[in-house]
Amino acid sequence: MFCYSHKIRVRYGETDKMGVVYHGAYPLYYEEARTEMLRSVGLSYAKLERRGIMMPVREMHISYSAPAYYDDLLTVRVEVRQMPGARIVFHHLIYNQDEKLINEAELTLVFVDTATGRPCRVPQDFAEFLKPYFH
Amino acid sequence: MFCYSHKIRVRYGETDKMGVVYHGAYPLYYEEARTEMLRSVGLSYAKLERRGIMMPVREMHISYSAPAYYDDLLTVRVEVRQMPGARIVFHHLIYNQDEKLINEAELTLVFVDTATGRPCRVPQDFAEFLKPYFH
Amino acid sequence: MFCYSHKIRVRYGETDKMGVVYHGAYPLYYEEARTEMLRSVGLSYAKLERRGIMMPVREMHISYSAPAYYDDLLTVRVEVRQMPGARIVFHHLIYNQDEKLINEAELTLVFVDTATGRPCRVPQDFAEFLKPYFH
Amino acid sequence: MFCYSHKIRVRYGETDKMGVVYHGAYPLYYEEARTEMLRSVGLSYAKLERRGIMMPVREMHISYSAPAYYDDLLTVRVEVRQMPGARIVFHHLIYNQDEKLINEAELTLVFVDTATGRPCRVPQDFAEFLKPYFH
Repeated sequence: MFCYSHKIRVRYGETDKMGVVYHGAYPLYYEEARTEMLRSVGLSYAKLERRGIMMPVREMHISYSAPAYYDDLLTVRVEVRQMPGARIVFHHLIYNQDEKLINEAELTLVFVDTATGRPCRVPQDFAEFLKPYFH
Repeated sequence: MFCYSHKIRVRYGETDKMGVVYHGAYPLYYEEARTEMLRSVGLSYAKLERRGIMMPVREMHISYSAPAYYDDLLTVRVEVRQMPGARIVFHHLIYNQDEKLINEAELTLVFVDTATGRPCRVPQDFAEFLKPYFH
Repeated sequence: MFCYSHKIRVRYGETDKMGVVYHGAYPLYYEEARTEMLRSVGLSYAKLERRGIMMPVREMHISYSAPAYYDDLLTVRVEVRQMPGARIVFHHLIYNQDEKLINEAELTLVFVDTATGRPCRVPQDFAEFLKPYFH
Repeated sequence: MFCYSHKIRVRYGETDKMGVVYHGAYPLYYEEARTEMLRSVGLSYAKLERRGIMMPVREMHISYSAPAYYDDLLTVRVEVRQMPGARIVFHHLIYNQDEKLINEAELTLVFVDTATGRPCRVPQDFAEFLKPYFH
């Protein structure tokens, strides 16, 4: 399993009139954490796109446990629990500054060749990087 | 089963650099459709909140089938397939103007008493309205 | 002067913890109203883009007068007060269902040739449509 | 004059189909930078609200110079050029990683007593902190 953690501060505009983070704001947090995870391993999603590979989201499942509030400093955990092939599954867990679990999510993304619009395999360099974590 | 359909036009700001609606924008569409569904049956989520009942989202599962584009006129279907108790499950299906399925979602919301912060039962008037659909 | 009015219902996710529409959510409302204004005159911003013309925003000035709330049915007024050339100025006024002024905005957009990335003139058909309003 | 700089990484969901940051996404960046500026001087907007003071935005003026892109690392500058009274004016300048100016903004916020809903003076501790910068 490969793990990575990234901190995000809640913005005012991400809250709603319930006084908590809007349930629809979390996908942005997961996305930011995945981007930083890729950067941490020497990859960059921006560069992947320039190389002709996109990673659209095919499935997203979120279980909300507790609310997050404005100015909370959240820890967004990214886990890759299985070696990716044509798709990659990310598990996310968000904790607040008191280590309380806010929510858990599972997102499935596919690798797509931008030129053809068709699915493709995980890029070689990303696969090489991940391999040692799955033995 | 109770069904309702609502039309939403995609905004420019809801797209991303892939040229399609951002995967994280759909919760806003589901939310708008649920609000209009409640209004269509003589209820109003705004009024429910003033009566002291909130409906936070506990779980959200989205399966993305096809992209939606700027200016698409989407039909967001809302289905209540089971009589709600302390929680209510909404199924959403989004179709574009060519009747192509864009995505499907299942959201579980709970009824919460704002004063106590504790779960409560579906409001009586909403339950009365729904009953005939489940016989 | 050319005027157009469009109605928008406030979404829950567009409010913030102050209980009102987030000040940064209004640009989406202005944008939706401009899109509908163009449609009303037989144009379509989506088609303009396919014809190779973009209209990026160069300047935006908003004066906030009163808050808007969840579920408010806002009227977004679009005014074109001067014949456009290489740029077009939109005045927006937002009123709630009680005809209270919520805010006023002035946005300057430029016409850009997507192929060259350079400014261009207002498209001929749009200019033809607007001319009668400025005599 | 009091100055502060804060770095923000552009999220994918903040771009639009033009391939650049949506013009309506910048208010969130200014807001985040103001929050961090207040924290840097030992204040906290979250705490100000708990003390019964809100700071709604009354006016916002943005001049867009150049586009920002996904994954850009932006520097958001916050300047307070005048001693605040019942209102405070923030000047923001956003630069990208190549020190190119992306846009400039001027926002006027008012201090409001949450209990009465009426304007009030800048909080004493904030005023004390700022004074030395205006002599």
